[in-house]
Amino acid sequence: MRISVGVSNRHIHLTEEDYKELFGSIPLTKRNDLNQPGMFASELTVTLMGPKRSISNVRVLGPLRTYTQVEISKTDAYSLGVKPPVRNSGDLLGADEITVVGPMGTITKKVAIIAARHIHVDKKIREEKGLVGIDKVSVRIPGEKSGIIDNVWLKDSEEAYFELHLDTDDANCFLLKQDDEVEIIL
Amino acid sequence: MRISVGVSNRHIHLTEEDYKELFGSIPLTKRNDLNQPGMFASELTVTLMGPKRSISNVRVLGPLRTYTQVEISKTDAYSLGVKPPVRNSGDLLGADEITVVGPMGTITKKVAIIAARHIHVDKKIREEKGLVGIDKVSVRIPGEKSGIIDNVWLKDSEEAYFELHLDTDDANCFLLKQDDEVEIIL
Repeated sequence: MRISVGVSNRHIHLTEEDYKELFGSIPLTKRNDLNQPGMFASELTVTLMGPKRSISNVRVLGPLRTYTQVEISKTDAYSLGVKPPVRNSGDLLGADEITVVGPMGTITKKVAIIAARHIHVDKKIREEKGLVGIDKVSVRIPGEKSGIIDNVWLKDSEEAYFELHLDTDDANCFLLKQDDEVEIIL
Repeated sequence: MRISVGVSNRHIHLTEEDYKELFGSIPLTKRNDLNQPGMFASELTVTLMGPKRSISNVRVLGPLRTYTQVEISKTDAYSLGVKPPVRNSGDLLGADEITVVGPMGTITKKVAIIAARHIHVDKKIREEKGLVGIDKVSVRIPGEKSGIIDNVWLKDSEEAYFELHLDTDDANCFLLKQDDEVEIIL
């Protein structure tokens, strides 16, 4: 079964409280919609600071959430000097500490993860695609640096856009770009 | 069949002529031996400059070669703003132009590639491991971000250390570190 790829660069989700700490009364204005309904990239960015180095221009995604979460690649993690675990979004068990710098303030929290490979689905998509009752799949990737990735989790939401989300390490390893097509193996 | 992983960070090989252009009469002193017999990491580094950004502290490997070659990852390529092809070492067909800055001079040449995944073998290793007559294999990678990589080329030399060489994109995608063990699929 074919599916298109969404490449997730490093980014941050924020709670309202943490947002106010970093941005004060600056509004969370939309830059562009993302493929997942309701989600957007804001015009705002933060700087991530680890024990080793910092990375600036890290996009704040919206809307605000019930948890603050920094999603980075393993390459970013080496650069920052942090050791984030691989986690599904919202699961911050063992998340590593990182400092986030905004224009109005700074927070230091255990919120850094490497996002697990995942496919966005909803009830309707699961039924249409024959994915009811399935937790995770593997995905075959074509091309000059082809291969297969395992442990790709199905992530349910109320209304989803059917898309495989990979971080920049996964994408660059296989020379994948946004909207490339790959194949789910059932 | 088990094989250990060697992770190749970005690096440069130089001809004697290009070496003199960059380093003048500075000697190519060894920092440490690499696993491949005769190969070493020198104490010297260069800066790579692309149209978009530059990357400093790029290691010069020794000994000098009959061709100059810059090996970078796709992640590096995006950062620099260059478009290197995936190539086996020594095959510079379509290699992208890059500027290399040393302490004594600068060269700008079409020498930037992404190194194809490869396994170092020699005649004896091929015979011992049942790899005679085989051009390329796939490799199964265990772990939390497991999977399979294809198009892993067998690279012959006079005397080799049996090792799978991956760039940092491949390694970081699968959370692999130097000397981790993976499995050749025949």
